[in-house]
Amino acid sequence: MRISLIGAGRVAYHLAQVLSAQHEIVQIYSRTMDKAQQLAKQFQAQAITQSEELTANVDLVIIAVSDQSIASVIGQIHPYLPYSLIVHTSGSTHLDVLKKAHTRAGVFYPLQTFSLERDIDWQTTPLFIEATNEQDQILLLDLANSLSNRVYNYSSSQRLSLHLAAVFACNFSNYCYDMAKQVVDAEQVDFSLLYPLILETANKATQNDPCQMQTGPAMRGDQNILNIHQQMLQQSQRPDLAEVYAILSQQILQRHQPS
Amino acid sequence: MRISLIGAGRVAYHLAQVLSAQHEIVQIYSRTMDKAQQLAKQFQAQAITQSEELTANVDLVIIAVSDQSIASVIGQIHPYLPYSLIVHTSGSTHLDVLKKAHTRAGVFYPLQTFSLERDIDWQTTPLFIEATNEQDQILLLDLANSLSNRVYNYSSSQRLSLHLAAVFACNFSNYCYDMAKQVVDAEQVDFSLLYPLILETANKATQNDPCQMQTGPAMRGDQNILNIHQQMLQQSQRPDLAEVYAILSQQILQRHQPS
Repeated sequence: MRISLIGAGRVAYHLAQVLSAQHEIVQIYSRTMDKAQQLAKQFQAQAITQSEELTANVDLVIIAVSDQSIASVIGQIHPYLPYSLIVHTSGSTHLDVLKKAHTRAGVFYPLQTFSLERDIDWQTTPLFIEATNEQDQILLLDLANSLSNRVYNYSSSQRLSLHLAAVFACNFSNYCYDMAKQVVDAEQVDFSLLYPLILETANKATQNDPCQMQTGPAMRGDQNILNIHQQMLQQSQRPDLAEVYAILSQQILQRHQPS
Repeated sequence: MRISLIGAGRVAYHLAQVLSAQHEIVQIYSRTMDKAQQLAKQFQAQAITQSEELTANVDLVIIAVSDQSIASVIGQIHPYLPYSLIVHTSGSTHLDVLKKAHTRAGVFYPLQTFSLERDIDWQTTPLFIEATNEQDQILLLDLANSLSNRVYNYSSSQRLSLHLAAVFACNFSNYCYDMAKQVVDAEQVDFSLLYPLILETANKATQNDPCQMQTGPAMRGDQNILNIHQQMLQQSQRPDLAEVYAILSQQILQRHQPS
Protein backbone atom coordinates (compact mmCIF):
# COMPACT_ATOMS: atom_id res chain seq x y z
CA MET A 1 0.00 0.00 0.00
CA ARG A 2 0.94 3.63 -0.53
CA ILE A 3 0.48 5.38 2.82
CA SER A 4 0.72 9.04 3.88
CA LEU A 5 0.95 10.26 7.44
CA ILE A 6 -0.56 13.45 8.86
CA GLY A 7 1.47 14.41 11.93
CA ALA A 8 5.13 13.87 12.80
CA GLY A 9 4.95 13.07 16.50
CA ARG A 10 5.50 9.88 18.46
CA VAL A 11 2.55 7.90 17.09
CA ALA A 12 3.43 8.89 13.49
CA TYR A 13 7.05 7.89 14.04
CA HIS A 14 6.24 4.42 15.42
CA LEU A 15 3.58 3.78 12.75
CA ALA A 16 5.94 4.84 9.96
CA GLN A 17 8.63 2.59 11.38
CA VAL A 18 6.50 -0.57 11.53
CA LEU A 19 4.54 0.09 8.31
CA SER A 20 7.58 0.97 6.16
CA ALA A 21 8.73 -2.66 6.37
CA GLN A 22 5.87 -3.77 4.10
CA HIS A 23 4.45 -0.58 2.64
CA GLU A 24 5.56 2.63 1.00
CA ILE A 25 5.44 5.78 3.11
CA VAL A 26 4.62 8.44 0.49
CA GLN A 27 4.24 11.77 2.32
CA ILE A 28 4.62 13.10 5.84
CA TYR A 29 2.65 16.23 6.58
CA SER A 30 3.41 18.46 9.56
CA ARG A 31 2.90 22.16 10.25
CA THR A 32 6.63 22.29 11.06
CA MET A 33 8.96 21.58 8.14
CA ASP A 34 11.80 20.45 10.46
CA LYS A 35 9.65 17.76 12.04
CA ALA A 36 8.24 16.60 8.71
CA GLN A 37 11.71 16.39 7.18
CA GLN A 38 13.24 14.57 10.12
CA LEU A 39 10.67 11.80 9.83
CA ALA A 40 10.47 11.79 6.01
CA LYS A 41 14.23 11.32 5.69
CA GLN A 42 14.16 8.11 7.74
CA PHE A 43 11.45 6.53 5.59
CA GLN A 44 12.30 7.89 2.11
CA ALA A 45 9.08 9.92 2.10
CA GLN A 46 8.27 13.47 0.98
CA ALA A 47 8.00 16.10 3.71
CA ILE A 48 5.18 18.62 3.25
CA THR A 49 3.64 21.45 5.32
CA GLN A 50 0.64 22.46 3.17
CA SER A 51 -2.45 20.40 2.45
CA GLU A 52 -2.33 21.55 -1.21
CA GLU A 53 0.86 19.51 -1.56
CA LEU A 54 -0.91 16.27 -0.62
CA THR A 55 -0.94 13.68 -3.38
CA ALA A 56 -4.32 12.01 -3.98
CA ASN A 57 -2.61 8.88 -5.29
CA VAL A 58 -2.36 7.00 -1.95
CA ASP A 59 -4.37 4.08 -0.53
CA LEU A 60 -4.36 5.07 3.09
CA VAL A 61 -3.92 8.32 5.02
CA ILE A 62 -3.28 8.08 8.75
CA ILE A 63 -4.05 11.11 10.92
CA ALA A 64 -1.77 10.90 13.96
CA VAL A 65 -2.29 14.27 15.65
CA SER A 66 -3.64 15.32 19.06
CA ASP A 67 -7.31 14.48 19.73
CA GLN A 68 -8.51 18.07 19.64
CA SER A 69 -6.86 18.76 16.25
CA ILE A 70 -8.50 15.88 14.35
CA ALA A 71 -11.68 17.77 13.41
CA SER A 72 -9.81 20.73 11.92
CA VAL A 73 -7.22 18.49 10.19
CA ILE A 74 -9.83 16.44 8.34
CA GLY A 75 -11.48 19.68 7.23
CA GLN A 76 -8.19 20.87 5.72
CA ILE A 77 -7.00 17.68 4.03
CA HIS A 78 -10.10 15.90 2.73
CA PRO A 79 -10.55 18.02 -0.46
CA TYR A 80 -7.10 16.86 -1.64
CA LEU A 81 -7.66 13.16 -0.87
CA PRO A 82 -11.03 12.31 -2.47
CA TYR A 83 -10.31 8.60 -3.10
CA SER A 84 -8.18 7.49 -0.13
CA LEU A 85 -9.22 5.77 3.06
CA ILE A 86 -8.53 8.25 5.87
CA VAL A 87 -8.21 6.96 9.45
CA HIS A 88 -7.43 8.56 12.80
CA THR A 89 -5.49 6.90 15.63
CA SER A 90 -7.41 8.27 18.63
CA GLY A 91 -9.05 6.23 21.36
CA SER A 92 -11.44 8.96 22.37
CA THR A 93 -12.56 10.40 19.02
CA HIS A 94 -15.71 9.10 17.35
CA LEU A 95 -15.55 7.85 13.75
CA ASP A 96 -18.24 10.42 12.96
CA VAL A 97 -15.69 13.25 13.27
CA LEU A 98 -14.05 11.95 10.05
CA LYS A 99 -17.22 10.57 8.47
CA LYS A 100 -18.91 13.96 8.46
CA ALA A 101 -16.24 15.27 6.06
CA HIS A 102 -15.09 12.14 4.21
CA THR A 103 -16.90 9.02 2.95
CA ARG A 104 -14.08 6.47 3.28
CA ALA A 105 -13.31 7.03 6.96
CA GLY A 106 -11.90 4.72 9.58
CA VAL A 107 -10.11 4.28 12.91
CA PHE A 108 -6.80 2.57 13.59
CA TYR A 109 -6.21 2.93 17.34
CA PRO A 110 -3.28 1.30 19.16
CA LEU A 111 -3.86 1.01 22.95
CA GLN A 112 -0.28 1.78 23.90
CA THR A 113 1.97 4.45 25.42
CA PHE A 114 4.33 5.79 22.78
CA SER A 115 7.68 7.36 23.57
CA LEU A 116 10.46 8.16 21.15
CA GLU A 117 13.07 6.30 23.18
CA ARG A 118 11.42 2.89 23.41
CA ASP A 119 10.47 0.44 20.68
CA ILE A 120 6.88 -0.78 20.54
CA ASP A 121 6.07 -4.46 20.84
CA TRP A 122 3.40 -4.36 18.14
CA GLN A 123 2.55 -8.06 18.39
CA THR A 124 1.10 -7.62 21.89
CA THR A 125 -0.34 -4.12 21.39
CA PRO A 126 -4.16 -4.17 21.21
CA LEU A 127 -5.33 -2.58 17.93
CA PHE A 128 -8.89 -1.29 17.51
CA ILE A 129 -10.20 -0.81 14.00
CA GLU A 130 -13.39 0.58 12.55
CA ALA A 131 -14.51 1.81 9.11
CA THR A 132 -17.56 3.31 7.41
CA ASN A 133 -17.70 0.59 4.76
CA GLU A 134 -17.07 -3.13 4.77
CA GLN A 135 -14.21 -3.20 2.25
CA ASP A 136 -12.24 -0.66 4.25
CA GLN A 137 -13.02 -2.63 7.39
CA ILE A 138 -11.39 -5.69 5.77
CA LEU A 139 -8.44 -3.62 4.56
CA LEU A 140 -7.80 -2.31 8.11
CA LEU A 141 -8.33 -5.76 9.61
CA ASP A 142 -5.66 -7.22 7.32
CA LEU A 143 -3.28 -4.38 8.08
CA ALA A 144 -3.87 -4.71 11.85
CA ASN A 145 -3.48 -8.49 11.78
CA SER A 146 -0.15 -8.10 10.00
CA LEU A 147 1.11 -6.12 13.01
CA SER A 148 -0.61 -7.48 16.12
CA ASN A 149 -2.09 -10.64 17.58
CA ARG A 150 -4.70 -8.62 19.45
CA VAL A 151 -7.00 -6.95 16.92
CA TYR A 152 -10.49 -5.78 17.93
CA ASN A 153 -13.36 -4.86 15.64
CA TYR A 154 -14.81 -2.33 18.07
CA SER A 155 -17.43 0.31 17.37
CA SER A 156 -16.77 3.93 18.33
CA SER A 157 -19.02 3.61 21.37
CA GLN A 158 -17.08 0.54 22.51
CA ARG A 159 -13.74 2.26 21.99
CA LEU A 160 -14.97 5.38 23.80
CA SER A 161 -16.28 3.31 26.70
CA LEU A 162 -12.85 1.68 27.01
CA HIS A 163 -11.31 5.13 27.25
CA LEU A 164 -13.91 6.23 29.79
CA ALA A 165 -13.26 3.07 31.82
CA ALA A 166 -9.53 3.81 31.76
CA VAL A 167 -10.27 7.18 33.40
CA PHE A 168 -11.99 5.33 36.28
CA ALA A 169 -9.47 2.48 36.53
CA CYS A 170 -6.28 4.53 36.14
CA ASN A 171 -6.74 8.29 36.52
CA PHE A 172 -9.21 8.02 39.42
CA SER A 173 -7.38 5.18 41.19
CA ASN A 174 -4.21 7.30 40.98
CA TYR A 175 -6.10 10.21 42.53
CA CYS A 176 -7.15 7.83 45.34
CA TYR A 177 -3.43 7.16 45.96
CA ASP A 178 -2.81 10.91 45.90
CA MET A 179 -5.58 11.52 48.48
CA ALA A 180 -4.21 8.68 50.66
CA LYS A 181 -0.76 10.28 50.59
CA GLN A 182 -2.21 13.63 51.66
CA VAL A 183 -3.96 11.92 54.60
CA VAL A 184 -0.79 10.27 55.92
CA ASP A 185 1.50 13.23 55.11
CA ALA A 186 -0.62 15.43 57.40
CA GLU A 187 0.20 13.09 60.32
CA GLN A 188 3.88 12.46 59.42
CA VAL A 189 3.07 8.86 58.59
CA ASP A 190 5.18 7.00 56.02
CA PHE A 191 3.18 6.58 52.76
CA SER A 192 5.36 3.63 51.76
CA LEU A 193 3.62 1.56 54.47
CA LEU A 194 0.71 1.38 52.02
CA TYR A 195 2.74 0.11 49.03
CA PRO A 196 2.10 -3.62 49.65
CA LEU A 197 -1.65 -2.99 50.03
CA ILE A 198 -1.78 -0.84 46.87
CA LEU A 199 0.01 -3.44 44.76
CA GLU A 200 -2.01 -6.34 46.19
CA THR A 201 -5.30 -4.51 45.49
CA ALA A 202 -4.31 -3.87 41.86
CA ASN A 203 -3.11 -7.45 41.39
CA LYS A 204 -6.30 -8.93 42.80
CA ALA A 205 -8.44 -6.77 40.49
CA THR A 206 -6.69 -8.29 37.47
CA GLN A 207 -7.26 -11.85 38.70
CA ASN A 208 -10.87 -11.60 39.88
CA ASP A 209 -13.95 -9.46 39.41
CA PRO A 210 -13.11 -6.31 41.45
CA CYS A 211 -16.67 -6.25 42.78
CA GLN A 212 -15.98 -9.57 44.51
CA MET A 213 -12.67 -8.25 45.86
CA GLN A 214 -14.16 -5.18 47.59
CA THR A 215 -13.16 -4.81 51.25
CA GLY A 216 -13.31 -2.02 53.84
CA PRO A 217 -15.75 -0.44 56.29
CA ALA A 218 -18.35 0.62 53.68
CA MET A 219 -18.43 -2.86 52.16
CA ARG A 220 -18.95 -4.38 55.65
CA GLY A 221 -21.55 -1.74 56.53
CA ASP A 222 -19.41 -0.70 59.51
CA GLN A 223 -21.15 2.59 60.37
CA ASN A 224 -18.95 3.10 63.43
CA ILE A 225 -15.71 3.33 61.40
CA LEU A 226 -17.42 5.35 58.66
CA ASN A 227 -18.44 7.94 61.27
CA ILE A 228 -14.96 8.04 62.82
CA HIS A 229 -13.38 8.60 59.40
CA GLN A 230 -15.86 11.35 58.53
CA GLN A 231 -15.07 13.10 61.80
CA MET A 232 -11.32 12.83 61.19
CA LEU A 233 -11.64 14.38 57.71
CA GLN A 234 -13.88 17.17 58.94
CA GLN A 235 -11.55 17.96 61.84
CA SER A 236 -8.58 18.08 59.47
CA GLN A 237 -10.30 20.80 57.41
CA ARG A 238 -10.44 18.72 54.27
CA PRO A 239 -14.01 19.05 53.00
CA ASP A 240 -12.79 17.81 49.59
CA LEU A 241 -11.62 14.47 51.01
CA ALA A 242 -14.73 14.24 53.21
CA GLU A 243 -16.92 14.70 50.12
CA VAL A 244 -15.16 11.92 48.19
CA TYR A 245 -15.22 9.67 51.27
CA ALA A 246 -18.97 10.20 51.74
CA ILE A 247 -19.95 9.59 48.12
CA LEU A 248 -17.75 6.55 47.47
CA SER A 249 -18.67 4.96 50.81
CA GLN A 250 -22.37 5.50 50.17
CA GLN A 251 -22.09 3.92 46.71
CA ILE A 252 -20.07 0.95 48.01
CA LEU A 253 -22.66 0.48 50.78
CA GLN A 254 -25.50 0.47 48.26
CA ARG A 255 -23.69 -1.98 45.99
CA HIS A 256 -22.79 -4.45 48.75
CA GLN A 257 -25.42 -3.96 51.45
CA PRO A 258 -28.68 -3.83 49.51
CA SER A 259 -31.49 -2.84 51.85
CA MET B 1 7.00 -12.62 80.26
CA ARG B 2 3.75 -14.23 81.31
CA ILE B 3 1.17 -13.37 78.65
CA SER B 4 -2.60 -13.99 78.41
CA LEU B 5 -4.65 -13.69 75.26
CA ILE B 6 -8.24 -12.46 75.00
CA GLY B 7 -9.73 -13.95 71.83
CA ALA B 8 -8.98 -17.19 69.99
CA GLY B 9 -9.17 -16.09 66.35
CA ARG B 10 -6.56 -15.68 63.66
CA VAL B 11 -4.63 -12.81 65.24
CA ALA B 12 -4.57 -14.57 68.65
CA TYR B 13 -3.34 -17.77 67.02
CA HIS B 14 -0.46 -16.11 65.16
CA LEU B 15 0.55 -14.00 68.16
CA ALA B 16 0.50 -17.05 70.48
CA GLN B 17 2.61 -18.94 67.98
CA VAL B 18 5.35 -16.34 67.66
CA LEU B 19 5.32 -15.24 71.33
CA SER B 20 5.37 -18.77 72.80
CA ALA B 21 8.92 -19.21 71.52
CA GLN B 22 10.27 -16.75 74.12
CA HIS B 23 7.39 -16.22 76.53
CA GLU B 24 4.86 -18.20 78.54
CA ILE B 25 1.27 -18.17 77.27
CA VAL B 26 -0.72 -18.37 80.53
CA GLN B 27 -4.42 -18.19 79.63
CA ILE B 28 -6.53 -18.05 76.51
CA TYR B 29 -9.95 -16.50 76.95
CA SER B 30 -12.77 -17.00 74.46
CA ARG B 31 -16.55 -16.99 74.76
CA THR B 32 -16.47 -20.43 73.10
CA MET B 33 -14.77 -23.19 75.15
CA ASP B 34 -13.97 -25.22 72.03
CA LYS B 35 -12.03 -22.37 70.47
CA ALA B 36 -10.22 -21.52 73.69
CA GLN B 37 -9.23 -25.16 74.25
CA GLN B 38 -8.07 -25.68 70.68
CA LEU B 39 -5.61 -22.82 70.99
CA ALA B 40 -4.65 -23.42 74.64
CA LYS B 41 -3.70 -27.02 73.92
CA GLN B 42 -1.15 -25.98 71.29
CA PHE B 43 0.61 -23.56 73.63
CA GLN B 44 0.27 -25.34 77.00
CA ALA B 45 -2.03 -22.58 78.26
CA GLN B 46 -5.24 -22.65 80.28
CA ALA B 47 -8.50 -22.25 78.35
CA ILE B 48 -11.14 -20.04 80.03
CA THR B 49 -14.54 -18.61 79.07
CA GLN B 50 -15.32 -16.36 82.07
CA SER B 51 -13.51 -13.17 83.05
CA GLU B 52 -13.67 -14.24 86.71
CA GLU B 53 -11.26 -17.04 85.84
CA LEU B 54 -8.57 -14.60 84.66
CA THR B 55 -5.38 -14.69 86.72
CA ALA B 56 -4.02 -11.30 87.73
CA ASN B 57 -0.49 -12.68 87.85
CA VAL B 58 0.50 -11.91 84.23
CA ASP B 59 2.73 -9.19 82.73
CA LEU B 60 0.85 -8.62 79.51
CA VAL B 61 -2.72 -9.17 78.30
CA ILE B 62 -3.36 -8.97 74.56
CA ILE B 63 -6.91 -8.27 73.38
CA ALA B 64 -7.23 -9.80 69.90
CA VAL B 65 -10.94 -9.51 69.18
CA SER B 66 -12.97 -7.67 66.50
CA ASP B 67 -12.74 -3.86 66.58
CA GLN B 68 -16.31 -3.34 67.74
CA SER B 69 -15.93 -5.75 70.71
CA ILE B 70 -12.87 -4.07 72.25
CA ALA B 71 -14.82 -1.54 74.34
CA SER B 72 -17.06 -4.16 75.94
CA VAL B 73 -14.18 -6.63 76.45
CA ILE B 74 -12.03 -4.14 78.39
CA GLY B 75 -15.05 -3.34 80.56
CA GLN B 76 -15.43 -7.02 81.45
CA ILE B 77 -11.80 -7.98 82.07
CA HIS B 78 -10.09 -4.97 83.65
CA PRO B 79 -11.38 -5.58 87.24
CA TYR B 80 -9.56 -8.94 87.26
CA LEU B 81 -6.30 -7.61 85.84
CA PRO B 82 -5.43 -4.57 87.97
CA TYR B 83 -1.63 -4.77 87.60
CA SER B 84 -1.08 -6.00 84.03
CA LEU B 85 -0.37 -4.06 80.88
CA ILE B 86 -3.40 -4.54 78.59
CA VAL B 87 -3.03 -3.89 74.85
CA HIS B 88 -5.32 -4.20 71.86
CA THR B 89 -4.23 -5.18 68.34
CA SER B 90 -6.52 -2.95 66.26
CA GLY B 91 -5.42 -0.45 63.64
CA SER B 92 -8.58 1.60 63.86
CA THR B 93 -9.24 1.74 67.62
CA HIS B 94 -7.93 4.64 69.68
CA LEU B 95 -5.80 3.93 72.76
CA ASP B 96 -8.38 5.94 74.75
CA VAL B 97 -10.88 3.07 74.44
CA LEU B 98 -8.65 1.03 76.81
CA LYS B 99 -7.27 3.99 78.77
CA LYS B 100 -10.73 5.04 79.94
CA ALA B 101 -11.06 1.74 81.84
CA HIS B 102 -7.46 0.78 82.63
CA THR B 103 -4.34 2.77 83.57
CA ARG B 104 -1.66 0.55 82.02
CA ALA B 105 -3.04 0.49 78.49
CA GLY B 106 -1.33 0.08 75.13
CA VAL B 107 -1.55 -0.88 71.47
CA PHE B 108 0.31 -3.62 69.63
CA TYR B 109 -0.91 -3.46 66.02
CA PRO B 110 0.52 -5.63 63.24
CA LEU B 111 -0.22 -4.25 59.73
CA GLN B 112 -0.80 -7.61 58.12
CA THR B 113 -3.50 -9.92 56.74
CA PHE B 114 -3.85 -12.96 58.95
CA SER B 115 -5.18 -16.29 57.74
CA LEU B 116 -5.02 -19.62 59.53
CA GLU B 117 -3.45 -21.39 56.55
CA ARG B 118 -0.44 -19.18 55.99
CA ASP B 119 2.49 -18.42 58.26
CA ILE B 120 3.31 -14.78 58.99
CA ASP B 121 6.69 -13.31 58.09
CA TRP B 122 6.96 -11.34 61.32
CA GLN B 123 10.35 -9.84 60.48
CA THR B 124 8.89 -7.79 57.61
CA THR B 125 5.49 -7.09 59.22
CA PRO B 126 5.17 -3.43 60.31
CA LEU B 127 4.32 -3.27 64.03
CA PHE B 128 2.79 -0.14 65.57
CA ILE B 129 3.07 0.30 69.33
CA GLU B 130 1.73 2.84 71.79
CA ALA B 131 1.29 2.98 75.58
CA THR B 132 -0.04 5.31 78.26
CA ASN B 133 3.22 5.33 80.20
CA GLU B 134 6.86 5.35 79.22
CA GLN B 135 7.89 2.09 80.89
CA ASP B 136 5.15 0.19 79.08
CA GLN B 137 6.17 1.93 75.86
CA ILE B 138 9.70 0.53 76.33
CA LEU B 139 8.35 -2.91 77.21
CA LEU B 140 6.27 -3.00 74.00
CA LEU B 141 9.14 -1.59 71.95
CA ASP B 142 11.44 -4.40 73.14
CA LEU B 143 8.78 -7.01 72.46
CA ALA B 144 8.07 -5.59 68.98
CA ASN B 145 11.77 -5.34 68.11
CA SER B 146 12.22 -9.00 69.06
CA LEU B 147 9.68 -9.90 66.33
CA SER B 148 10.02 -7.37 63.53
CA ASN B 149 12.52 -5.10 61.80
CA ARG B 150 9.82 -2.53 61.11
CA VAL B 151 8.59 -1.13 64.43
CA TYR B 152 6.82 2.24 64.58
CA ASN B 153 6.17 4.37 67.67
CA TYR B 154 2.98 5.84 66.25
CA SER B 155 0.31 7.78 68.13
CA SER B 156 -3.33 6.73 67.87
CA SER B 157 -4.06 9.58 65.47
CA GLN B 158 -1.16 8.50 63.25
CA ARG B 159 -2.32 4.87 63.31
CA LEU B 160 -5.90 5.90 62.56
CA SER B 161 -4.77 8.13 59.69
CA LEU B 162 -2.89 5.18 58.20
CA HIS B 163 -6.10 3.17 58.32
CA LEU B 164 -8.09 6.04 56.80
CA ALA B 165 -5.47 6.38 54.05
CA ALA B 166 -5.75 2.65 53.34
CA VAL B 167 -9.47 3.15 52.68
CA PHE B 168 -8.60 5.73 50.00
CA ALA B 169 -5.64 3.83 48.53
CA CYS B 170 -7.15 0.34 48.53
CA ASN B 171 -10.92 0.24 49.11
CA PHE B 172 -11.64 3.28 46.93
CA SER B 173 -9.15 2.36 44.19
CA ASN B 174 -10.78 -1.08 44.05
CA TYR B 175 -14.17 0.58 43.67
CA CYS B 176 -12.69 2.59 40.77
CA TYR B 177 -11.78 -0.74 39.12
CA ASP B 178 -15.30 -1.99 39.83
CA MET B 179 -16.85 1.11 38.21
CA ALA B 180 -14.50 0.74 35.20
CA LYS B 181 -15.62 -2.85 34.74
CA GLN B 182 -19.28 -1.81 34.82
CA VAL B 183 -18.57 0.80 32.11
CA VAL B 184 -16.94 -1.69 29.73
CA ASP B 185 -19.33 -4.57 30.56
CA ALA B 186 -22.26 -2.43 29.40
CA GLU B 187 -20.63 -2.19 25.93
CA GLN B 188 -19.39 -5.81 25.73
CA VAL B 189 -15.81 -4.60 25.96
CA ASP B 190 -13.16 -6.86 27.47
CA PHE B 191 -12.16 -5.55 30.94
CA SER B 192 -8.83 -7.38 30.71
CA LEU B 193 -7.69 -4.78 28.14
CA LEU B 194 -7.26 -2.47 31.13
CA TYR B 195 -5.06 -4.84 33.18
CA PRO B 196 -1.70 -3.47 31.96
CA LEU B 197 -2.82 0.12 32.66
CA ILE B 198 -4.12 -0.79 36.13
CA LEU B 199 -0.90 -2.52 37.14
CA GLU B 200 1.30 0.22 35.66
CA THR B 201 -0.65 2.92 37.53
CA ALA B 202 -0.25 1.09 40.86
CA ASN B 203 3.44 0.43 40.23
CA LYS B 204 4.17 4.05 39.37
CA ALA B 205 2.41 5.25 42.55
CA THR B 206 4.82 3.17 44.64
CA GLN B 207 7.87 4.58 42.85
CA ASN B 208 6.93 8.26 42.69
CA ASP B 209 4.63 10.78 44.35
CA PRO B 210 1.20 9.86 42.90
CA CYS B 211 0.40 13.57 42.54
CA GLN B 212 3.25 13.85 40.01
CA MET B 213 2.01 10.72 38.20
CA GLN B 214 -1.53 12.02 37.59
CA THR B 215 -2.69 11.76 33.96
CA GLY B 216 -6.03 11.99 32.16
CA PRO B 217 -8.44 14.60 30.78
CA ALA B 218 -9.10 16.35 34.12
CA MET B 219 -5.38 16.70 34.82
CA ARG B 220 -4.85 18.18 31.33
CA GLY B 221 -7.91 20.42 31.72
CA ASP B 222 -9.41 18.85 28.57
CA GLN B 223 -12.97 20.15 28.92
CA ASN B 224 -13.97 18.60 25.59
CA ILE B 225 -13.32 15.02 26.74
CA LEU B 226 -14.79 15.73 30.19
CA ASN B 227 -18.05 16.83 28.54
CA ILE B 228 -18.13 13.80 26.23
CA HIS B 229 -17.64 11.45 29.19
CA GLN B 230 -20.35 13.18 31.22
CA GLN B 231 -22.76 12.83 28.29
CA MET B 232 -21.91 9.14 27.91
CA LEU B 233 -22.60 8.45 31.59
CA GLN B 234 -25.84 10.39 31.58
CA GLN B 235 -27.04 8.63 28.43
CA SER B 236 -26.24 5.24 29.97
CA GLN B 237 -28.54 6.00 32.91
CA ARG B 238 -25.76 5.82 35.47
CA PRO B 239 -26.17 8.93 37.64
CA ASP B 240 -24.00 7.23 40.29
CA LEU B 241 -21.01 6.98 37.94
CA ALA B 242 -21.68 10.48 36.58
CA GLU B 243 -21.59 11.84 40.15
CA VAL B 244 -18.25 10.21 40.94
CA TYR B 245 -16.86 11.31 37.56
CA ALA B 246 -17.90 14.92 38.16
CA ILE B 247 -16.52 15.18 41.70
CA LEU B 248 -13.19 13.45 41.11
CA SER B 249 -12.61 15.33 37.83
CA GLN B 250 -13.38 18.63 39.48
CA GLN B 251 -10.96 17.91 42.34
CA ILE B 252 -8.21 16.74 39.98
CA LEU B 253 -8.73 19.89 37.89
CA GLN B 254 -8.43 22.11 40.97
CA ARG B 255 -5.28 20.29 42.15
CA HIS B 256 -3.51 20.43 38.79
CA GLN B 257 -4.95 23.47 37.00
CA PRO B 258 -4.98 26.17 39.67
CA SER B 259 -6.84 29.20 38.39
